[in-house]
Amino acid sequence: MKPVNEAFNDTIQRQINHKTIRAFKQIPLDKETVQALIDVARHTASSQFLQACTVISVTDPVKKQAISEVSHQPYIANNGHLFVFVLDQYRNLQIGHEQGQDENKLGSAAKFFAGFSDTVLAVQNTVNAAESLGLGTVILGSILNDAQKIIDILDLPKLTFPILGLAVGYPDQQPQLKPRLPETFMHFENSYQLPTPILPQLEDYDARVHEYYDLREANKRVDTFTNQVKRSLMTQPDARGELLHVVHQQGFLLTDKA
Amino acid sequence: MKPVNEAFNDTIQRQINHKTIRAFKQIPLDKETVQALIDVARHTASSQFLQACTVISVTDPVKKQAISEVSHQPYIANNGHLFVFVLDQYRNLQIGHEQGQDENKLGSAAKFFAGFSDTVLAVQNTVNAAESLGLGTVILGSILNDAQKIIDILDLPKLTFPILGLAVGYPDQQPQLKPRLPETFMHFENSYQLPTPILPQLEDYDARVHEYYDLREANKRVDTFTNQVKRSLMTQPDARGELLHVVHQQGFLLTDKA
Repeated sequence: MKPVNEAFNDTIQRQINHKTIRAFKQIPLDKETVQALIDVARHTASSQFLQACTVISVTDPVKKQAISEVSHQPYIANNGHLFVFVLDQYRNLQIGHEQGQDENKLGSAAKFFAGFSDTVLAVQNTVNAAESLGLGTVILGSILNDAQKIIDILDLPKLTFPILGLAVGYPDQQPQLKPRLPETFMHFENSYQLPTPILPQLEDYDARVHEYYDLREANKRVDTFTNQVKRSLMTQPDARGELLHVVHQQGFLLTDKA
Repeated sequence: MKPVNEAFNDTIQRQINHKTIRAFKQIPLDKETVQALIDVARHTASSQFLQACTVISVTDPVKKQAISEVSHQPYIANNGHLFVFVLDQYRNLQIGHEQGQDENKLGSAAKFFAGFSDTVLAVQNTVNAAESLGLGTVILGSILNDAQKIIDILDLPKLTFPILGLAVGYPDQQPQLKPRLPETFMHFENSYQLPTPILPQLEDYDARVHEYYDLREANKRVDTFTNQVKRSLMTQPDARGELLHVVHQQGFLLTDKA
């Protein structure tokens, strides 16, 4: 008997077979495709209808190169369409100011979190649209390796913040499916109840991750999941230690009661 | 001639016709459907493979009622399957600790933002899966009206944070499509360049939003977009002023250089 999910539709089949694509063919996205992706992003749900997200298409080769250096992802410099998704409360500030509204609570934690959600929802919506067209995607959390540099490159004003990059293109690789944590460890009912000790229960999963062969890093990482997690408790890349400082400089999270 | 997007596929058609559904039929989701949605959430891309998201299905009527009160959304108490998507670095802490790793930088801004993104990406992926099955969804940023209460209701440990609720069910309403900001104001090339003054350029859009008739609030809000935004500069609901304090209590964003 086939697993239950096999019975579901193409969209869901695609979603449970999602793979990050890190190599794109030398075929640019046509204008209509970019337009469709932006239309999808635009129609994503947003908190309190504030639509606190702006998308920047990065086409300038010099800027693409600079962003690829921040991300340590050389492949995004050349191929694929590069979007940067920006949390944007500046547009709302401008709309308020032009109506004579001098108060400004758009930097509060509530508004920052709402804008953060708006922005990330739009990213995943765009990913799903791209994959429905047979395109591949890589989401670049790594732009936050140096948020200030991204802000400088894209001339981002106060009350905006770069959240995620997204490169989209025609896949030039076919990676295997990366095994995900079993449901037992990430879906609970009515309250948080992680089954502990967790380590002995993750042995099978660790073995499967170890087996998993990522085309991207054939000669680099042959690792287990729990080892990766262990390292994550102590390491932190690059200028990310400055991240909160840059958030404050952009006018966000400055006071608890804003 | 039809607009370009008409030429695109069903997935994209659905996405650009996305409407929030706030009334569900008295038909529960079957187990296989919930399973499929969780499988999709599980296979969402995650930052550095840390899979920093946990989903809680809230089925206890008392807890559903309590969450609906925090959200001021009475309809979620009765119908629809209620998920709460939780940023989860606690699981990773546990995995590290059980291996004798005593350092802990999982509360840093970098890890908080990465987990925030992981979690919201999973929400939108689940939304797209649900809509592909003909289900309706409402994303509940409003659980952050009182984050501490949600933490208490769901017994969330340190290094977790509730980010968004998501109710999914069989639609019992057919709202109109809410007009979104035109692309000119939310998609730029190579740098942030909002066309200002923006207000005169939003007159048509304001008129369309004013016209827009939301079934949910037929007798409540007949408003323009720019008015809504103006109000957003000064108002803030409920306990959201305490939000950052609760984030700190959960062990996140405590130091700049963590």
